[in-house]
Amino acid sequence: MVEPGCSVGILGGGQLGRMLAMAAARLGLRPHIYAPAGDNPAFQVCDKATEGAYDDVEALKRFAQSCDVVTLEFENVPADALTAIAAEAPVYPDANALRVSQDRLTEKTFLQEAVIATTRFAKIDEIAELRDALEEFGGQGVLKTRRLGYDGKGQVRLRFGDQAESALAQIGHAPAILEAISPFERELSVIVARGRAGEIRSFDPAENVHRDGILHTSAVPGAIPAEQARVAIETATRLADALGYVGVMGVEFFALPDGKLQVNEFAPRVHNSGHWTIEACAVSQFEQHIRAVCGWPLGDPKRHSDAQMTNLIGDEIHAEALREGAPHTGFHHYGKAEARPGRKMGHVTRLTGPAAR
Amino acid sequence: MVEPGCSVGILGGGQLGRMLAMAAARLGLRPHIYAPAGDNPAFQVCDKATEGAYDDVEALKRFAQSCDVVTLEFENVPADALTAIAAEAPVYPDANALRVSQDRLTEKTFLQEAVIATTRFAKIDEIAELRDALEEFGGQGVLKTRRLGYDGKGQVRLRFGDQAESALAQIGHAPAILEAISPFERELSVIVARGRAGEIRSFDPAENVHRDGILHTSAVPGAIPAEQARVAIETATRLADALGYVGVMGVEFFALPDGKLQVNEFAPRVHNSGHWTIEACAVSQFEQHIRAVCGWPLGDPKRHSDAQMTNLIGDEIHAEALREGAPHTGFHHYGKAEARPGRKMGHVTRLTGPAAR
Repeated sequence: MVEPGCSVGILGGGQLGRMLAMAAARLGLRPHIYAPAGDNPAFQVCDKATEGAYDDVEALKRFAQSCDVVTLEFENVPADALTAIAAEAPVYPDANALRVSQDRLTEKTFLQEAVIATTRFAKIDEIAELRDALEEFGGQGVLKTRRLGYDGKGQVRLRFGDQAESALAQIGHAPAILEAISPFERELSVIVARGRAGEIRSFDPAENVHRDGILHTSAVPGAIPAEQARVAIETATRLADALGYVGVMGVEFFALPDGKLQVNEFAPRVHNSGHWTIEACAVSQFEQHIRAVCGWPLGDPKRHSDAQMTNLIGDEIHAEALREGAPHTGFHHYGKAEARPGRKMGHVTRLTGPAAR
Repeated sequence: MVEPGCSVGILGGGQLGRMLAMAAARLGLRPHIYAPAGDNPAFQVCDKATEGAYDDVEALKRFAQSCDVVTLEFENVPADALTAIAAEAPVYPDANALRVSQDRLTEKTFLQEAVIATTRFAKIDEIAELRDALEEFGGQGVLKTRRLGYDGKGQVRLRFGDQAESALAQIGHAPAILEAISPFERELSVIVARGRAGEIRSFDPAENVHRDGILHTSAVPGAIPAEQARVAIETATRLADALGYVGVMGVEFFALPDGKLQVNEFAPRVHNSGHWTIEACAVSQFEQHIRAVCGWPLGDPKRHSDAQMTNLIGDEIHAEALREGAPHTGFHHYGKAEARPGRKMGHVTRLTGPAAR
């Protein structure tokens, strides 16, 4: 077990690393951030910061040697980097969870093998495969690169009459999948934590609304029926178990008109749709993740309040930063230097009422 | 107004400075801690740390020049240090609030002049004054040094038959006051915030229980009658106004058997009895203080939950750090290296139920 005073390494210097570092500090642990040169807001709040590239094996090794455990804020850590670190310090989540989630084809195949419902999908390496898959999926679908997509990047939606060739060109002919378009009624997500001994605690599912491919709001309980919430938690639990996962994981679902759920994707890390836990639970997703990877007993994930989280994108941060404090509302500014369009700059969480305890 | 990205200087590297730094970071501000060499847990969570003595005027000046505003975690900052800093950057709370609160005689006299009820007291510089005061107060009282007392240090309780001489010797014949013993039924405190434009927001009063002169628990609402809570807030508000105060202030009260209140003392800073606000309010006392000193609109201080905070003193931290997460309970470890007896090492806050919103 990683005790207070020990060093927790975190790969990645963005807002997730920043909030992980603050949660670690609250527990008396020493966060050490490793991130490539750039605007790294997590550097502002950590005990130690190391600037280094993800392919600098020597730097990664030195970093890992100074840590009692290492974790990460994003799933696209190169496999070689992870191998270098794992030789020096325990790493959670492990290489297997990252390998599965880094590639949409591997991810979907894993879900299928674990008998977890997901959208229909097909591997696309060339135009013929895309034409076949489009025909099979009724002429439409979402073409997604297998790797490195986020916030709607690396995706093209194909509708009737769209040009398959231009879509492939748009994603640079990268290895891809085509996903059938899910006729979902709503999107929801579950933040699930699994400890080193396999114990599992889930936060309540949030209903998510996206805008321009970026998460806009997460509401708990939202309009999610109780039975659907139960199934979502049960599915996230099965997935975490199937992966032998350690840490916090975000699992995104589509809820279909018949009430059934499909897993859209999962992220082996803390998740934007779990930020509401900072205000609405005594133990946030960030603290829960740190507890899990450090081998601590997991905290109580039960919410005391209903909540709605709203992301502040680009310029939205400026008005919000100076705004009169609204009732029961927490404001978070990520400390990023430049408010570029589409950039996640902060968020607010409003507690909308008491929850049953 | 001090905007996100600006630097907030904080004098003092203990747990209050640490929690202030984390609150500032959440708002996108850059905390810069100044503290003398030693075990400074606030250094682990800040953007910048400067090790320096409080009488090193040049170091203090350089520190202040790098800050957009300066505040403090403890009231015993030497007057000269404050003068040096104030020449370079705005400082809140100001020299006047510190001057009044640093000396128990000045503090009590200020309360008297503001027509705020306090315990009876007498200035004690020599044995004759102590004998006279003891006679006047019915033969008993608490002898307190005028300066630098905290957590019951620098205090001697005199009972019938006690030796006045030995009491004076115990406090090293320092300038002192004798306070009459208040026949209080309970202790409570109010955390009040006053902004740069004079606006005031109060958190709900907490009922406090001390052990061995150190705060043990703070409960909200505790057993405080509604009318007493109202008067406590009203009194704290009058005091903040009378001082022209900017920032968060802790005001401690004795509640007498007839329901009336006496101010015991006040602290021009965030206060141990306000730690429950981290879990039970969307905006904590730490964030509220940062908002006030930075000229931001104050946040909503209304609690969403009832709460009980328990300090973890000395060895108590060890069992707590590893404990299974209790329902709706937040745990805080201050990151101090050594768990000495009587040392505040951390705290837990349990949310005991929903509050009326």
